[in-house]
Amino acid sequence: MRVVISIGGSILAPELDSDRVAAHAEAIESLAGEGCEIGIVVGGGGVARDYITTARELDANEVQLDQLGIDVTRINARLLISALDVQVNSAPATDYDGAGDALQRGDISVMGGITPGQTTDAVAAAFAEYIDADLLVYATNTDGVYDADPATDPEAIKYTTMSPSELVDIIVPMSRDAGASAPVDILAAKLIERSGMRSIVLDGSDPENIESAILRGDHTGTDIIP
Amino acid sequence: MRVVISIGGSILAPELDSDRVAAHAEAIESLAGEGCEIGIVVGGGGVARDYITTARELDANEVQLDQLGIDVTRINARLLISALDVQVNSAPATDYDGAGDALQRGDISVMGGITPGQTTDAVAAAFAEYIDADLLVYATNTDGVYDADPATDPEAIKYTTMSPSELVDIIVPMSRDAGASAPVDILAAKLIERSGMRSIVLDGSDPENIESAILRGDHTGTDIIP
Amino acid sequence: MRVVISIGGSILAPELDSDRVAAHAEAIESLAGEGCEIGIVVGGGGVARDYITTARELDANEVQLDQLGIDVTRINARLLISALDVQVNSAPATDYDGAGDALQRGDISVMGGITPGQTTDAVAAAFAEYIDADLLVYATNTDGVYDADPATDPEAIKYTTMSPSELVDIIVPMSRDAGASAPVDILAAKLIERSGMRSIVLDGSDPENIESAILRGDHTGTDIIP
Amino acid sequence: MRVVISIGGSILAPELDSDRVAAHAEAIESLAGEGCEIGIVVGGGGVARDYITTARELDANEVQLDQLGIDVTRINARLLISALDVQVNSAPATDYDGAGDALQRGDISVMGGITPGQTTDAVAAAFAEYIDADLLVYATNTDGVYDADPATDPEAIKYTTMSPSELVDIIVPMSRDAGASAPVDILAAKLIERSGMRSIVLDGSDPENIESAILRGDHTGTDIIP
Amino acid sequence: MRVVISIGGSILAPELDSDRVAAHAEAIESLAGEGCEIGIVVGGGGVARDYITTARELDANEVQLDQLGIDVTRINARLLISALDVQVNSAPATDYDGAGDALQRGDISVMGGITPGQTTDAVAAAFAEYIDADLLVYATNTDGVYDADPATDPEAIKYTTMSPSELVDIIVPMSRDAGASAPVDILAAKLIERSGMRSIVLDGSDPENIESAILRGDHTGTDIIP
Amino acid sequence: MRVVISIGGSILAPELDSDRVAAHAEAIESLAGEGCEIGIVVGGGGVARDYITTARELDANEVQLDQLGIDVTRINARLLISALDVQVNSAPATDYDGAGDALQRGDISVMGGITPGQTTDAVAAAFAEYIDADLLVYATNTDGVYDADPATDPEAIKYTTMSPSELVDIIVPMSRDAGASAPVDILAAKLIERSGMRSIVLDGSDPENIESAILRGDHTGTDIIP
Repeated sequence: MRVVISIGGSILAPELDSDRVAAHAEAIESLAGEGCEIGIVVGGGGVARDYITTARELDANEVQLDQLGIDVTRINARLLISALDVQVNSAPATDYDGAGDALQRGDISVMGGITPGQTTDAVAAAFAEYIDADLLVYATNTDGVYDADPATDPEAIKYTTMSPSELVDIIVPMSRDAGASAPVDILAAKLIERSGMRSIVLDGSDPENIESAILRGDHTGTDIIP
Repeated sequence: MRVVISIGGSILAPELDSDRVAAHAEAIESLAGEGCEIGIVVGGGGVARDYITTARELDANEVQLDQLGIDVTRINARLLISALDVQVNSAPATDYDGAGDALQRGDISVMGGITPGQTTDAVAAAFAEYIDADLLVYATNTDGVYDADPATDPEAIKYTTMSPSELVDIIVPMSRDAGASAPVDILAAKLIERSGMRSIVLDGSDPENIESAILRGDHTGTDIIP
Repeated sequence: MRVVISIGGSILAPELDSDRVAAHAEAIESLAGEGCEIGIVVGGGGVARDYITTARELDANEVQLDQLGIDVTRINARLLISALDVQVNSAPATDYDGAGDALQRGDISVMGGITPGQTTDAVAAAFAEYIDADLLVYATNTDGVYDADPATDPEAIKYTTMSPSELVDIIVPMSRDAGASAPVDILAAKLIERSGMRSIVLDGSDPENIESAILRGDHTGTDIIP
Repeated sequence: MRVVISIGGSILAPELDSDRVAAHAEAIESLAGEGCEIGIVVGGGGVARDYITTARELDANEVQLDQLGIDVTRINARLLISALDVQVNSAPATDYDGAGDALQRGDISVMGGITPGQTTDAVAAAFAEYIDADLLVYATNTDGVYDADPATDPEAIKYTTMSPSELVDIIVPMSRDAGASAPVDILAAKLIERSGMRSIVLDGSDPENIESAILRGDHTGTDIIP
Repeated sequence: MRVVISIGGSILAPELDSDRVAAHAEAIESLAGEGCEIGIVVGGGGVARDYITTARELDANEVQLDQLGIDVTRINARLLISALDVQVNSAPATDYDGAGDALQRGDISVMGGITPGQTTDAVAAAFAEYIDADLLVYATNTDGVYDADPATDPEAIKYTTMSPSELVDIIVPMSRDAGASAPVDILAAKLIERSGMRSIVLDGSDPENIESAILRGDHTGTDIIP
Repeated sequence: MRVVISIGGSILAPELDSDRVAAHAEAIESLAGEGCEIGIVVGGGGVARDYITTARELDANEVQLDQLGIDVTRINARLLISALDVQVNSAPATDYDGAGDALQRGDISVMGGITPGQTTDAVAAAFAEYIDADLLVYATNTDGVYDADPATDPEAIKYTTMSPSELVDIIVPMSRDAGASAPVDILAAKLIERSGMRSIVLDGSDPENIESAILRGDHTGTDIIP
């Protein structure tokens, strides 16, 4: 099975904590031991947020802020690489060709962001397209896709399954509301739709959720089924 | 004045035609002669469409199709570079840092796409953000932003001016409709919104439109005013 | 068997046609299935010719024209890569070290041109030298090496076999005559001579000719035997 | 005057603080306004320390730890770049040739580390050698070179002036004692010695110290005079 | 005046000798002082020959031999760069775009070889084409173009002037004779012909010959006049 | 067993000699045949010394001298690569990530220097750290570590075994004395100490010494045992 896992920064590194990284590394090693070919895209987390806040106070422009965030995602990728005891690319890939080559030579392929204006959510979806993945997993800090923001709307209902088009329909209006935290960004949703990529959005705070979702289809998040 | 011009592939190279490229080169030289610092982002046009159609028949995945399109935009950028008789970067930049460096050393900076999943519309908006441009111009094959698709809806009304938020509000539903031809893509619109970038969408088939819009604010398209 | 195949642009992509590319991909997959290690160098074809014609009208210099041609060969290489269902490098190599590394890790190695002033004919010969190939095949639009241009001289006689030195002796005067279409260029011929590389020049319009020449030595072109 | 300033991580970013970065940016802009050609090498600070601690707990090897530290120095360099309102390289240089080219085209050249096993102290010394700098300034958290560690030895005496050879003589035994905090590392000291580079070690916590030392030779640190 | 000078390895570095390199550096500085824009392509000389001889004994293939030679030309370029007291690129360019960019930002642009299968003679011709040079000078160890090899044929007559086509006509048969030392290689001659590049072949052992030929048209070699 | 061998320039190439290179290649092939995973770092030797002497006479700065030396180490690495008849990286790696990737895909990984200010001794130690090598061998022109310079002090005593800390203690004062030839440089010694890397310093003039030390622990040099 070929799978791409997007591990949000708020999941891998809300703050730096070796136990948390180690737990994710173990889940990945376990998946590799079951024969999965694995691509990982890592987010920025607390350190990225700190740099962006500081740079914004210094009047950095939005592309410079994006670039700082990308650089942090790559450091987080290196951190995860250093924790993995299986064959993995030495340095995070900086484009899809490089990420694909790593996978082709038998490595787990860990990367961060690629270019300003493109979130790691979108990178994960494009990477999944590129390698014709069987499954794309978003390990986020919400436990699925809701019809409203569950943090503010107690009536919000979680989808158990939905189609890629329904995902885009849900995400589009959320992406108009600055306060809302869409589980994946609009570009990622549209990439999932164009490829008809089977995807799961789940709560990644416990890495075992990721593992059981991939190996046994067992999870409490949202299945996006083309 | 610092300006980024996005020249759509359908404008620069619907098919390869040296007169058309030369006319755009002259407009750019004229702008440079007036003291503008100029960044250009070039689209793919007819050749990109041909490669993508062919590759799709060969079962290429969406990222491979994007990559073919990007490669063609870079060739189109080289074609425009070869037509310019002013100081211009030798090779199209492949990231924002490189594009910004070219401008900083006094070159006109011509580039194509950067990475799969990001249109040249979005590249132009990010490039404008990155260099803190005064103005971003989309030279497209429609003459502004309409409230509906003018090709199919005779009642469609063109906006003379609108805010970046209104642009996003208009684009979002269009981006749900595969048949609609939004004048700029959703990611570009959102980048314009986040930076509050002054922008113009105009008919670029006559390069003089671009020139007069930039130099004299004189055009019949849509002004996006933050 | 280690083989380098030069697929001329007029063979792979006189115009863009997915059936033609698919047929070549099948022949290559079939060779790979027989255990061949395969390097492919792809030419520019009709798209390259169109860009070069347009740029020449825009007074591009000869190196810029070469560069446009090289960029198109790389897109053609990507097109062929996207059509191959066997292990192949993700992106065309841009130098011999990269092309050799791809082969070494078990990929089919597909590339286009490398640098201005060097045709893809010459790239194929140098690549064959670099990997110590057993055989170099030129799939061209003529069916071998003639003692004169068969298009204009009805008396032209095709060589069944010849030595590398004889090849150079034939090519040198042809390369003086702008109108003549030498089957391979002078630099390629001289590289074949310096390495004593076993080579075949054949009609590649039917990919089965390439396959049968490599697997069974069965072809109607010219054998160049050191 | 051509000057290289090494701004230690503990000076620029003990923790992320925009006021602190802004104050350093102002000092640099002020130096540029006085006609100085300026190279800056930035250290890692608190974020680097956090990543290294975390990775060490994950059993990363020493080179991986160095690499994480280097990546953070480059982010810090980007942060400082985004705060500078003068002509500066867009992205931190990753080798001496690139850093020198930036300076040659009139940019302030800001960089971080280069390669594992080489501290930013040493990078600053090599960069100063490379551009034949008139002066190399170490802005550190101690206010000069002492004959013992002032943090632990109340009798420690600060040198007002010393020769490069004396610097190496002082640093060598310090570098044997893991607890000691040498003001510059041994490799940097040896590079200063081999080039006979005029250098200053001073307390950089107030950026005005750096400015007055460079412009007026006015500081309370240690002058290293060849 | 824009000029490209090819300094053969046998001229710059038959063996390593600082006086010889210094004399060439002075001539180049003098040309720069007269307002020339200068590109330099440096050959391999004695060190290249030694490496190639050794590697051939180790059964290296021809492309590996070429690559060793190219690497030495780049070191020779660095040596010349280190001797120049005028604004010059920090590191030798590795492609034509990079070499052109160096010139565009006001540097003297010094480079060596680019890719296997292409001599520095050919690189110089392509570089001259690329920058639309007014003049291309080959500083070689023969004092012009002869109708036969002057080393072996006492009747050999030197051309005072000739056309690019005549140059190719002379070079082609020489390139068939392994023992002959053609003053420039066949690929270079053909590039000169295709661009109609004004060129001079002269004895470069005394750098003043180069200087006086470029500044005053005063030399005893061969003028190639389109 | 994973081993890194530092082959000093004075061992591999005091002057260019194919027999000497071939003998080292055979020893490496023999080690590979015994199942060793092998990283090689090659020094500069006579050619590096010649370039550095010449450039110093031309007033090159120390970083330029280092860069010339590094370029020569990479050519020496290519020379050794061309002599190896086992799977080896095509081109010398230029950073630790690249060197590690080569090893990971099953190649012998041959490299030279990386960056100015860092000797190939230090590169070898860092490479050994990076790949968690079991053993690091310095093949030098002295037969071990002495308590004084054996060339000048007839009483000098060779260590049979020592700890990494003792190595640093011995090297530090040697590194103060310009005339002394420390068997490894101070940075290398400190890297060995920080990682607790098992190392051997031995006379590498006969490659069989290297082979027998690695395969059978049989040598007459110094064992550095953490």
